[in-house]
Amino acid sequence: MRSPLNPIDLTQPVRPDMPRYPGDNLSVRFTPVATHEVDGYGATGVLLGTHSGTHLDAPRHFLAQGRTVDQVNLSRVCGRARVLDVRSEPETEITPSRLEQACGGTGQPAPGELVLLWTGWDKHFGTPFMTRFPFLGMEAAHLLVDWGVSLVGTDTLSVDSFRAKRFVVHDVLLGADRLIVENLCHLDRLEPGTVNCCLLPLPFSGLDGSPVRAIAWR
Amino acid sequence: MRSPLNPIDLTQPVRPDMPRYPGDNLSVRFTPVATHEVDGYGATGVLLGTHSGTHLDAPRHFLAQGRTVDQVNLSRVCGRARVLDVRSEPETEITPSRLEQACGGTGQPAPGELVLLWTGWDKHFGTPFMTRFPFLGMEAAHLLVDWGVSLVGTDTLSVDSFRAKRFVVHDVLLGADRLIVENLCHLDRLEPGTVNCCLLPLPFSGLDGSPVRAIAWR
Repeated sequence: MRSPLNPIDLTQPVRPDMPRYPGDNLSVRFTPVATHEVDGYGATGVLLGTHSGTHLDAPRHFLAQGRTVDQVNLSRVCGRARVLDVRSEPETEITPSRLEQACGGTGQPAPGELVLLWTGWDKHFGTPFMTRFPFLGMEAAHLLVDWGVSLVGTDTLSVDSFRAKRFVVHDVLLGADRLIVENLCHLDRLEPGTVNCCLLPLPFSGLDGSPVRAIAWR
Repeated sequence: MRSPLNPIDLTQPVRPDMPRYPGDNLSVRFTPVATHEVDGYGATGVLLGTHSGTHLDAPRHFLAQGRTVDQVNLSRVCGRARVLDVRSEPETEITPSRLEQACGGTGQPAPGELVLLWTGWDKHFGTPFMTRFPFLGMEAAHLLVDWGVSLVGTDTLSVDSFRAKRFVVHDVLLGADRLIVENLCHLDRLEPGTVNCCLLPLPFSGLDGSPVRAIAWR
């Protein structure tokens, strides 16, 4: 197998002033613990949340007994991914028929594949418009589970509508032991169709999620 | 290109009591910011250091004007890697001839390849023996630069001797804009020879390094 010679970065930069889901009080903080001037080298303490920036939700995020991020098998976050063009008007629900339409002539994803939902909303990250993203409907979430996808990635703040009272799509996906990655970016740099990707969390023991470094290549 | 169906994890688990380089005062800390009992979901604040656990040193770690971790091109941390069997007695210097011997019949790494130094010292991680690791000599570091390798990974605490007064090997490698990954594990699960790997840091804006998720596959 050839190596990924020119991977495309699908990850938002991690920095102290980075956008957060409204209501998330944990800001990323960088604190120097060694400096070139004093110590001859630089080292930094980093405070971040398990759901800061581009990140993975493990089932534990919503299920008290769910799989934790360090228990996620690497084959669930690295592999063939289907990029689905679901660009829509603001606050549009993505329905099963929209998913099927986005699959086009290539058919539905094979069991075990990842699905990356390209809404184009990453360009609004950090603007007041960022909460008006298209979102998965519950029926569409069930369809993705039925297809056997291992992971659903999106370039929005959430798979659930920002206006939802309950996180029903999280419940459906995580409840079926599937994974969610939110705040991806640059899905426009991938052609709709199939790519290889690695959406790699840090192996935090026992935790509910982790920021990821997300890359893709052909 | 086929996807990495069964990647091997080369990453130490990240947890609050994880081993640190002696003198590194920054312990990893996990702080719940939301809990299933109170909030209906779990979320966690994570404090870690740029050099906690399995991590990447960007040139900025030792050079005040060096490349930062978010400036590292993905092709420097993902690609073909040569696993070199340099298992040795404690505190042994890895010399140029030892590197050449480890290359065996396959010749030196091609320019742009990564090199993973398999010392087997990950089994001592967290024990008093962990500081008595084999280390790169300065001449060997120069040879790796001459070969054109993009990154040097090791399953030890450091590429420099623990007894070194100055971090000369860091100076040579980072000074030549090469990258270092330390505290890898499970290199014994790879055959000596060539593999594909991704050693992915988080894209911390302007920082000197980052924990990585390190994986490899054939």
